[in-house]
Amino acid sequence: MDTIAAISTPMGEGAIAIVRISGSDAIKTANRIFKGKNLEEVESHTIHYGFIIDPETNEKVEEVMVSVLKAPKTFTREDVVEINCHGGLVSVNRVLELVLNEGVRLAEPGEFTKRAFLNGRIDLSQAEAVMDLIRAKTDRAMKVAMGQMEGRLSKLIRNLRQTILETLAHVEVNIDYPEYDDVEEMTHQLLLEKASEIKTEIEKLLATSKQGKILRDGLSTAIIGRPNVGKSSLLNSLVHENKAIVTDIPGTTRDVIEEYVNVRGVPLRLVDTAGIRETEDIVERIGVERSRKVLKEADLILLVLNNAEPLTDEDRKLFEAVSGMDVIVIVNKIDLENRLNLDEVKQLAKDYPIISTSLKEEKGIDELEEAISSLFFKGKLEGGDITYVSNTRHIALLNQAKKAIDDVIQAVHSDVPIDLIQIDLTRVWEILGEIIGDTVHESLINQLFSQFCLGK
Amino acid sequence: MDTIAAISTPMGEGAIAIVRISGSDAIKTANRIFKGKNLEEVESHTIHYGFIIDPETNEKVEEVMVSVLKAPKTFTREDVVEINCHGGLVSVNRVLELVLNEGVRLAEPGEFTKRAFLNGRIDLSQAEAVMDLIRAKTDRAMKVAMGQMEGRLSKLIRNLRQTILETLAHVEVNIDYPEYDDVEEMTHQLLLEKASEIKTEIEKLLATSKQGKILRDGLSTAIIGRPNVGKSSLLNSLVHENKAIVTDIPGTTRDVIEEYVNVRGVPLRLVDTAGIRETEDIVERIGVERSRKVLKEADLILLVLNNAEPLTDEDRKLFEAVSGMDVIVIVNKIDLENRLNLDEVKQLAKDYPIISTSLKEEKGIDELEEAISSLFFKGKLEGGDITYVSNTRHIALLNQAKKAIDDVIQAVHSDVPIDLIQIDLTRVWEILGEIIGDTVHESLINQLFSQFCLGK
Repeated sequence: MDTIAAISTPMGEGAIAIVRISGSDAIKTANRIFKGKNLEEVESHTIHYGFIIDPETNEKVEEVMVSVLKAPKTFTREDVVEINCHGGLVSVNRVLELVLNEGVRLAEPGEFTKRAFLNGRIDLSQAEAVMDLIRAKTDRAMKVAMGQMEGRLSKLIRNLRQTILETLAHVEVNIDYPEYDDVEEMTHQLLLEKASEIKTEIEKLLATSKQGKILRDGLSTAIIGRPNVGKSSLLNSLVHENKAIVTDIPGTTRDVIEEYVNVRGVPLRLVDTAGIRETEDIVERIGVERSRKVLKEADLILLVLNNAEPLTDEDRKLFEAVSGMDVIVIVNKIDLENRLNLDEVKQLAKDYPIISTSLKEEKGIDELEEAISSLFFKGKLEGGDITYVSNTRHIALLNQAKKAIDDVIQAVHSDVPIDLIQIDLTRVWEILGEIIGDTVHESLINQLFSQFCLGK
Repeated sequence: MDTIAAISTPMGEGAIAIVRISGSDAIKTANRIFKGKNLEEVESHTIHYGFIIDPETNEKVEEVMVSVLKAPKTFTREDVVEINCHGGLVSVNRVLELVLNEGVRLAEPGEFTKRAFLNGRIDLSQAEAVMDLIRAKTDRAMKVAMGQMEGRLSKLIRNLRQTILETLAHVEVNIDYPEYDDVEEMTHQLLLEKASEIKTEIEKLLATSKQGKILRDGLSTAIIGRPNVGKSSLLNSLVHENKAIVTDIPGTTRDVIEEYVNVRGVPLRLVDTAGIRETEDIVERIGVERSRKVLKEADLILLVLNNAEPLTDEDRKLFEAVSGMDVIVIVNKIDLENRLNLDEVKQLAKDYPIISTSLKEEKGIDELEEAISSLFFKGKLEGGDITYVSNTRHIALLNQAKKAIDDVIQAVHSDVPIDLIQIDLTRVWEILGEIIGDTVHESLINQLFSQFCLGK
């Protein structure tokens, strides 16, 4: 593999910017544009002060600290040099330019992590966890990613695949060297037992996927209600009571900014925050069609009613619009005299939780947060040591694996010939292998890593 | 001084995020939340792989590389630890939080550099150059900052101050131990000679200040002209022919974004780029009052005329509006038949350069860039080894110093008593000292460093 380089810190003015170089020529290249110690003679994992110079003019370009990390104990398992610059846009680009002038290639997004994968330091699910860790919106999401990065999911998957391999081997032995007469029956029995075991494990993992996905991607949350019921007050309460996480992905336009609020470890991704803030009326602002779409894509609806006014047809229509979704009904303005028919609200709300609040007097926020948290995690969030499956790709593969293992079980029950069942079981082994990248196509690998950020 | 910490990479998703700790407890603190080698026992300037853990739960929070840099060979001259995290917002904030939990204080903006100054590693003008380097918009600006950071300006200032000190000492000796009878006259002569020398040096420095300031801050440039003369084509040509530098300062709103174009090392800051792109008419878009203000604040006006149409009253009014400013007249659309009265244009243009272009056919751009570059640098830009004064604070102090040295010269000519002249000369010494921070008030220091970015 050739030697690659990229800027590994986010774009923008900062105190430190890093140019990372990886590959067999990394140290030699850095040394050619470095004025200071001879980097080819220093120990691994050491840091050196000096200047980056333009080798053509001998002019000093930057004052830097250079880290020399020799293979294999590096991020990519290759020789790695990190040039630690003062954080200017122009200066770090100039340093990168000088590195590239020496014949090093600009790294593609995710290429350093891809090399860590291709060089066997981490498997595919661990590589994906690196990106999840970077994009994590809450501590809990980070913990899920951290667990996956450490290889907890990989270990479970590897164990399952090992069980499958052993079962296949056992079946093979039974067929080749039958100890008993009833080989067929014995083998069916073995397959049924093992397939059921595997199915249980896969289902256990899938059971964590809804929560895992919420932790990873956030809970898309829409606040709806008639004008002046207190939608923007609710938004402000949630944002102020909790740490708002405004993500700004460099290099993209502000259009993609979303506002996250961390409610007891559950990241709420608040939909159309700007719209709510500006007009107090999501429908008016974004149009009926788009707001219907927003509602359909939301994971959680916060439906706000006004305690001080009788229920209107508009309120009733909102209940209709969100039918079948995860809804929390908020009866706001309980500081004012009750004119809302609470019995009708209860009837409309069916089994949705109903929370009474006075956002003005800061009452009921705790109860609301409790309701949000328990709606999705039922108190299980504190459990801690669960291995969550959070990645959509992994979830899809686990669902495929579950279907394939169902096929195996079905086949056993239908007395399908053993060799056909073996094929089905091998298919499960392959599908699970895709999660950790053992049996995966190069095009998929390229596509996965291209979603990484530059310099990672 | 206590131990401080901050995130030193720009906010945003990236491959690497760094938490920097500085102070006598830096290594001890990092060690308490690090799982890996014992950081208190490792060599200076070494890098260590491991995990940041929450010491309360022993839970792994991040996979990191930790750099240990022991005083005095560090950025701050104190013990420094840099925790190199995967670049997630949440994870790097969590790591910082754990550091702060150990009793470390969050650093103020610029506090690391301030310590480098207070601990005597760099002087004030060098510290200011660090920020200039980070904010540099072009290679040349970077070079100016780099020279200043290396102490070239400091050296000149120190030499001047040394000359003053020696002169003052000499005067003192003359007075205390007069060798000749005409002490008074001799001393006046000496003072005049030395003051003139110093004045020349200060003037030399000030002569670089206009160019220095342009290199550092960019040349505020307005493109004006009637609708459809080719303003947006000109803008696009400038942006496409050159590297556009779009700066996005994290933590601020997009309102402050400015677009820079690097024209032969001169950073043009294009005013109201959006306005020109969208409506082709700056006046229509931003209103007459504001556009007048924009014009007044511009360092350079590019006034575009249409070669294919006769001059209009509107064109003539534009010439009036920019009277007395630095203007380049652009006669565009020379691919079309000439209907513009070029003699009248020449008359209106007085001594402004006139450049003929066909932006459509990409003609004349080189000539325009040459005109821009020579208008401000008169070919001297390639000179290379000049020490530019670029910082407004330094320029103001040099102007003060010049005035004070003029007072000295005036006083000598007026036969003012020596002891009064000594006071004036001491004043010059003090003013120059403010540039490098030798004679500067703490409040000014605090104010200067507060303009730095966080983590620097």
